[in-house]
Amino acid sequence: MKMITGGVCAAKGFKANGIRCGIRANHTDKDLALVVSDVMCTAAAVYTTNLVKGAPIAVTRENISDGRAQAVIVNSGNANTCNADGPEIARKMCGLAANALGLDPTDIIIGSTGVIGQPLSIIPIEKGMAELVSGLRVDGNSDAVEAIMTTDTRKKEAAVEFELDGHTCRIGGMAKGSGMIHPNMATTLIFITTDAAISSDMLQKALSTDVKTSFNMLSIDGDTSTNDTLAILANGLAGNPEISAEGAAFDTFLEALHCVTADLCRKMAADGEGATKMLECRVSHAPDENAAKTVAKSVICSSLLKAAMFGADANWGRVLCAIGYAGVPLDVDRIEVRFESAGGNILVCENGAGVAFSEEKAKKILLEKEIYILIDLHQGEAGATAWGCDLTYDYVKINGDYRT
Amino acid sequence: MKMITGGVCAAKGFKANGIRCGIRANHTDKDLALVVSDVMCTAAAVYTTNLVKGAPIAVTRENISDGRAQAVIVNSGNANTCNADGPEIARKMCGLAANALGLDPTDIIIGSTGVIGQPLSIIPIEKGMAELVSGLRVDGNSDAVEAIMTTDTRKKEAAVEFELDGHTCRIGGMAKGSGMIHPNMATTLIFITTDAAISSDMLQKALSTDVKTSFNMLSIDGDTSTNDTLAILANGLAGNPEISAEGAAFDTFLEALHCVTADLCRKMAADGEGATKMLECRVSHAPDENAAKTVAKSVICSSLLKAAMFGADANWGRVLCAIGYAGVPLDVDRIEVRFESAGGNILVCENGAGVAFSEEKAKKILLEKEIYILIDLHQGEAGATAWGCDLTYDYVKINGDYRT
Repeated sequence: MKMITGGVCAAKGFKANGIRCGIRANHTDKDLALVVSDVMCTAAAVYTTNLVKGAPIAVTRENISDGRAQAVIVNSGNANTCNADGPEIARKMCGLAANALGLDPTDIIIGSTGVIGQPLSIIPIEKGMAELVSGLRVDGNSDAVEAIMTTDTRKKEAAVEFELDGHTCRIGGMAKGSGMIHPNMATTLIFITTDAAISSDMLQKALSTDVKTSFNMLSIDGDTSTNDTLAILANGLAGNPEISAEGAAFDTFLEALHCVTADLCRKMAADGEGATKMLECRVSHAPDENAAKTVAKSVICSSLLKAAMFGADANWGRVLCAIGYAGVPLDVDRIEVRFESAGGNILVCENGAGVAFSEEKAKKILLEKEIYILIDLHQGEAGATAWGCDLTYDYVKINGDYRT
Repeated sequence: MKMITGGVCAAKGFKANGIRCGIRANHTDKDLALVVSDVMCTAAAVYTTNLVKGAPIAVTRENISDGRAQAVIVNSGNANTCNADGPEIARKMCGLAANALGLDPTDIIIGSTGVIGQPLSIIPIEKGMAELVSGLRVDGNSDAVEAIMTTDTRKKEAAVEFELDGHTCRIGGMAKGSGMIHPNMATTLIFITTDAAISSDMLQKALSTDVKTSFNMLSIDGDTSTNDTLAILANGLAGNPEISAEGAAFDTFLEALHCVTADLCRKMAADGEGATKMLECRVSHAPDENAAKTVAKSVICSSLLKAAMFGADANWGRVLCAIGYAGVPLDVDRIEVRFESAGGNILVCENGAGVAFSEEKAKKILLEKEIYILIDLHQGEAGATAWGCDLTYDYVKINGDYRT
């Protein structure tokens, strides 16, 4: 299992491109992305749990109901959500892409991200389609990921190479998302491609399993987006015997998938809106997995802890407090808390009470860019990891006037 | 029912005082408050739901288990939480106050607020007790409320005068709390006094009923404190027949209590850490009260909406989004959203979709200090109100380095 480059183009038989078609006036960023497989793929997806859902979600759901898809089209700059003509526009986008690619419109996965409640014009998309398709190439992943960014400051890609029954397989992905993330919001889109052969049922199972310990354990600001979509395409070009049931090959696939998704989670957390630090909270010795996850997310979501981390302030009382209101029955008198980073590791709380520690050493640890909050509950065998970021002036700035 | 001045001293027979005893070195603020009734009171309280609880909560719970108390002692600057000697120190504080007042230590309600996990020395409290008690007076409410402030920038008091069976009664209260509030955090303490005669059972019932629509509907930052305490003392000096069952007098008492608590909620929201605006979210025509409350709180708690309000940005998509992830089954296609303030009222969303509106008019409305977010769900008869504030640079600043 090794991490490689190439993002959504890492797997055999995938091409991508990203261009600026002009969805928002006065913006010069790329805003339209396309990922296409040379051959038909099995497909699976998971979506936001928000009751208010972007129109692209309904259309993607319809289109992959047969477990098949061959391309992904995504725009940024407009979420196409809470618009009366949303579904119509989303279907038109699929139609335009399908037409240019010689595919069936129902084999297209679609995503949109950006402002909610402003009509999305089809005109720039129509005008840009020829350029988008003619530029498709095997190293187009970088342009594609750039075109799905909104407030993201960095491209978020990951890919891994692994073996299945003697065949070299690859899984690669791209993600956007910086704010409105809990697990996923303003808004999170993740597209993953693989050349492994896997049935659509097992692909859906892999995705639904993985998301519980990857994107569902990520929170930037506690706001769950209306448009979150995590979709995966598997084109089978690696030549492995198709995975059609659980077993060793499925487990290997799951492991490879998690390498990609966990890496994307870390990258999304590090690029949280206004973030200066990535926070990873690891809970160990919890009574059960649900308790571990709930505690890890409660800590990662605490605005007060996030602000303290921004200030490199070892205010472990806020960690204890967030554990306390997580809603999980726990013996708080056993809890141990440590902060860790490239700068070292420091014990700050033992048996639920503070211990004497060097503020100087703590400061050095917390001034690093990746902070690990290690919570040992000392009351069981389960564990969980959650990702988040600090809360900064820039988060407020970015979100104080997002629409204009 | 009329609002009056006087805070915790508004009701007959209550005296108060607040002094600086020196709990935190290098701080010059008042840090020790005392409220005393001339005669024994019935008493009731509700506390934080956080599993991690400050030592003062356990001691208060013990002391009012007989439904009686006569005084309240509170310190700021240290929460006396997660300290091995916490309960011992809290009992010593009660003992010192009781001794100076000639009362029984078990008739004292105690509260502490400030940093978690730092030992609280009894020495400054012991030294300051004589000054604190000798300064008790019928207009000492202002000094008392000042002494319980931490990051609060304003004193939060409220009082009301009303009639029960021909007797003039008063209820007054003081609150601290600026951050860590959900319903109540870094940390929320509210003390209410009344000269109405009411049994401890009915007093507890009134408090537990009221808190559901007052402090439990307030959120500054989603963090629930370890020390939240809302306590009430009723000394009966108004001379009304004791309220010992439900009925008209109890309803009047509840109504008067809610005048005080809702006013304190608004004042706490307006003084949320770093806040520039008070947000009040009113949900109407919900399927049931629980749905209405859940939606109102979800909106008030959205970091994205709070940041948009700071920027006076009419980003109603964030309101819809927060309704959508509230976890309540709703028909989103019926939802109507308006923003209102002293600057006017504007419809921004109808039937779950955006409507054309004047950005200029919206800006004018949202630049005011008190913003009302009016959500008509058009699917039932229930309603609820929640209070919060905007998310600002100063929230981050205040919490980036709170301990030092």
